[in-house]
Amino acid sequence: MRTYEAALTETVRSIREVVAALHAQLTAYRLVAWTAGNVSGRVPGHDLMVIKPSGVDYADLTADSMVVCDLDGNVVEGGYSPSSDTAAHAYVYRHRPDVGGVVHTHSTYASAWAARGEAIPCVLTAMADEFGGDIPVGPFAMIGDDSIGRGIVETLAGHRSPAVLMRNHGVFTIGATPRDAVKAAVMCEDVARTVHIARQLGTPLTIDAVDVDRLYARYQKVYGQPGRTDGTE
Amino acid sequence: MRTYEAALTETVRSIREVVAALHAQLTAYRLVAWTAGNVSGRVPGHDLMVIKPSGVDYADLTADSMVVCDLDGNVVEGGYSPSSDTAAHAYVYRHRPDVGGVVHTHSTYASAWAARGEAIPCVLTAMADEFGGDIPVGPFAMIGDDSIGRGIVETLAGHRSPAVLMRNHGVFTIGATPRDAVKAAVMCEDVARTVHIARQLGTPLTIDAVDVDRLYARYQKVYGQPGRTDGTE
Amino acid sequence: MRTYEAALTETVRSIREVVAALHAQLTAYRLVAWTAGNVSGRVPGHDLMVIKPSGVDYADLTADSMVVCDLDGNVVEGGYSPSSDTAAHAYVYRHRPDVGGVVHTHSTYASAWAARGEAIPCVLTAMADEFGGDIPVGPFAMIGDDSIGRGIVETLAGHRSPAVLMRNHGVFTIGATPRDAVKAAVMCEDVARTVHIARQLGTPLTIDAVDVDRLYARYQKVYGQPGRTDGTE
Amino acid sequence: MRTYEAALTETVRSIREVVAALHAQLTAYRLVAWTAGNVSGRVPGHDLMVIKPSGVDYADLTADSMVVCDLDGNVVEGGYSPSSDTAAHAYVYRHRPDVGGVVHTHSTYASAWAARGEAIPCVLTAMADEFGGDIPVGPFAMIGDDSIGRGIVETLAGHRSPAVLMRNHGVFTIGATPRDAVKAAVMCEDVARTVHIARQLGTPLTIDAVDVDRLYARYQKVYGQPGRTDGTE
Repeated sequence: MRTYEAALTETVRSIREVVAALHAQLTAYRLVAWTAGNVSGRVPGHDLMVIKPSGVDYADLTADSMVVCDLDGNVVEGGYSPSSDTAAHAYVYRHRPDVGGVVHTHSTYASAWAARGEAIPCVLTAMADEFGGDIPVGPFAMIGDDSIGRGIVETLAGHRSPAVLMRNHGVFTIGATPRDAVKAAVMCEDVARTVHIARQLGTPLTIDAVDVDRLYARYQKVYGQPGRTDGTE
Repeated sequence: MRTYEAALTETVRSIREVVAALHAQLTAYRLVAWTAGNVSGRVPGHDLMVIKPSGVDYADLTADSMVVCDLDGNVVEGGYSPSSDTAAHAYVYRHRPDVGGVVHTHSTYASAWAARGEAIPCVLTAMADEFGGDIPVGPFAMIGDDSIGRGIVETLAGHRSPAVLMRNHGVFTIGATPRDAVKAAVMCEDVARTVHIARQLGTPLTIDAVDVDRLYARYQKVYGQPGRTDGTE
Repeated sequence: MRTYEAALTETVRSIREVVAALHAQLTAYRLVAWTAGNVSGRVPGHDLMVIKPSGVDYADLTADSMVVCDLDGNVVEGGYSPSSDTAAHAYVYRHRPDVGGVVHTHSTYASAWAARGEAIPCVLTAMADEFGGDIPVGPFAMIGDDSIGRGIVETLAGHRSPAVLMRNHGVFTIGATPRDAVKAAVMCEDVARTVHIARQLGTPLTIDAVDVDRLYARYQKVYGQPGRTDGTE
Repeated sequence: MRTYEAALTETVRSIREVVAALHAQLTAYRLVAWTAGNVSGRVPGHDLMVIKPSGVDYADLTADSMVVCDLDGNVVEGGYSPSSDTAAHAYVYRHRPDVGGVVHTHSTYASAWAARGEAIPCVLTAMADEFGGDIPVGPFAMIGDDSIGRGIVETLAGHRSPAVLMRNHGVFTIGATPRDAVKAAVMCEDVARTVHIARQLGTPLTIDAVDVDRLYARYQKVYGQPGRTDGTE
């Protein structure tokens, strides 16, 4: 008979592997330079999260080098210091029980919108699908306390978007799973770039709000394979 | 003696392999993010097409995971749901018997032109070669019924271009073979980018219509190796 | 004792290998899309050149698939049709005995300058080093006769630059060896991109003509390892 | 008992390996074209440095092909001529005993700012973290004597930034270790690109000087793993 502790150990192990592996998507899509972005995942049913260690090369990340923290950001298990963004991730998990994964990047085009403090307007069907409208801008917030986490949660409360541009900083995305949050980070940069380029030579045409709603509803319901959310496998 | 069914099975198998493999070109040329683009191929002599499954990672695509549909978009063979763009592909095959392959992407620069609803002007000899003139813009169309397919077919009817920019959405390309359609998608993004960049610092020079015609005629006739269309092997 | 024919065979074999392999640089630096660029090399001491076959994928190029032509562009050896740009390469070899390699691409930023018919101003020390001044623009020329070759040779006659932007078309570069010409194609796109980006937000500062001369003189004499031109091995 | 000479030999060997390997970061982040950038490392406790050979392909660099020079730039050990930027590296080591690594690139966006002679304003938290303020511009300086080295040292004297944009030329970065200098080169291009893109569509918001100071202080103290500077392993 498997004990509760053995089951937890196994769950943590599995999330360590998923979170470590997902960082390869950040580098493959060139969302990060050097060690500047991170992925975390909630341990379901526990007040625990798994997060990238601070300042370790993406090429050197392994399941074992991930750090397990409680939802106040204290290290529970792991030989490394956790990401310097741990407090922000933890805040999100404490205040959004629906969130199972958080991603942070300084991806180029999204960060450029963030540097101007400008939301990305929903002028692409792909944006309507994934974000359900504009990608909003959160406040300028100093790293190291709850400011960033609070900025993320308060800004996203008013939007369907799983991505928020933190002013002068970068992007945070959330998802039901770590993989969903990574997908949102990839798509956020993709649409940030396309809308930027569209704007360079004129004004993108708008999409009617009712069409944005219909696109979002359809995509959230019927895209992908039945019986799984996109990316939960 | 090989039966008719055995021959069809073999043909379908071969198109499954071709269509699955061609998706690697979409990622190599960075035309797609996450799972957002798709390739299909007609089964010659049958009212059938082979298309990418919905929401499956490019790295995981195999011949076996491709989906066979009839030309109304109903699944005939395959364990996955087909691409959410299946109706659009099917519409094209029904109305354009000359088309053997269809590709859809949200490639960055082409989608930026599409977001502004602006055709790409033919100011490069490479555009004259491949597209025979401007790359036109189709209407805004909701996904899920025949709107996109009809928009593609009606827009391309008036042009030599195998590519159409669907407003606020992305690109659809057609070809005699799936590989030709992929080539058109690659070249569409390439010229969309070059003409965008040319326009950023001024106005590209025009090419006389008669020269566009001559370039197009020559390229369609003499480019590549004798006895094959470009891209059939 | 090695016969003259055996020596020629060996020389041609070696140039086939060099020319085939150099195409990997065009793809690595993303100077080409699909099959749209080509490298050739002169067979020293003979009125012969080795060039890429037309419309064959870069991934499939081998020494054996290269085509040997005379300097009128007629095929002398090889199972494929030569590049559709063969006439232009051949013209350059006929009129510039100092040239041992020619490269053609539609690389993005250089082609954008070409689409506007605008020379790239020498505002970077790297441009002074490699090009000794501006990269000039040649005329609009139809493919298929001597127009392109003549445009290249006449334009480069008045410049130190080994690269010329052919109007509305793309880039041709020359070099003492095929590798030198490839280097010029790589550097041409690199400076075309940097100067474009510099121009997007203002006006680049000029470099005094006397400093351009000094930079060019030094780089051509002392860069690299003694006893070889940059790129001969 | 290990002699002094054996220890030095071992130290030099180790720095040869580190310096050779770090060039792979320049190509992975696409900071360099052809052979145009270089990394060097000081041999601690000796008036020696290890630097890239001139004009050798990045793919061919090995620990053995690195060149050991004294701090006047004279070759002490090695079969190749050292980088043509050796005098600049040597000048920095002579005048900045705190510097253990120097990197030079012509990375695209940073060089574009350099071509306009414009400092990169600190409008991103990532810039405050790594550079502690603007990235400054140094003078136009001819290669081949002490002009470049002097320009680097004099410009950086007034800034916290480990990167300087040399006018019409490119970037030099310094660090406690060669790896720190490479990190600075990677981050310099990353922020040069993001701020450029932010500026294309408007004016980035400023970050208060006091917040820049706080971000810099925190990052320099607490980022990464305890007991190592970021980048020493």
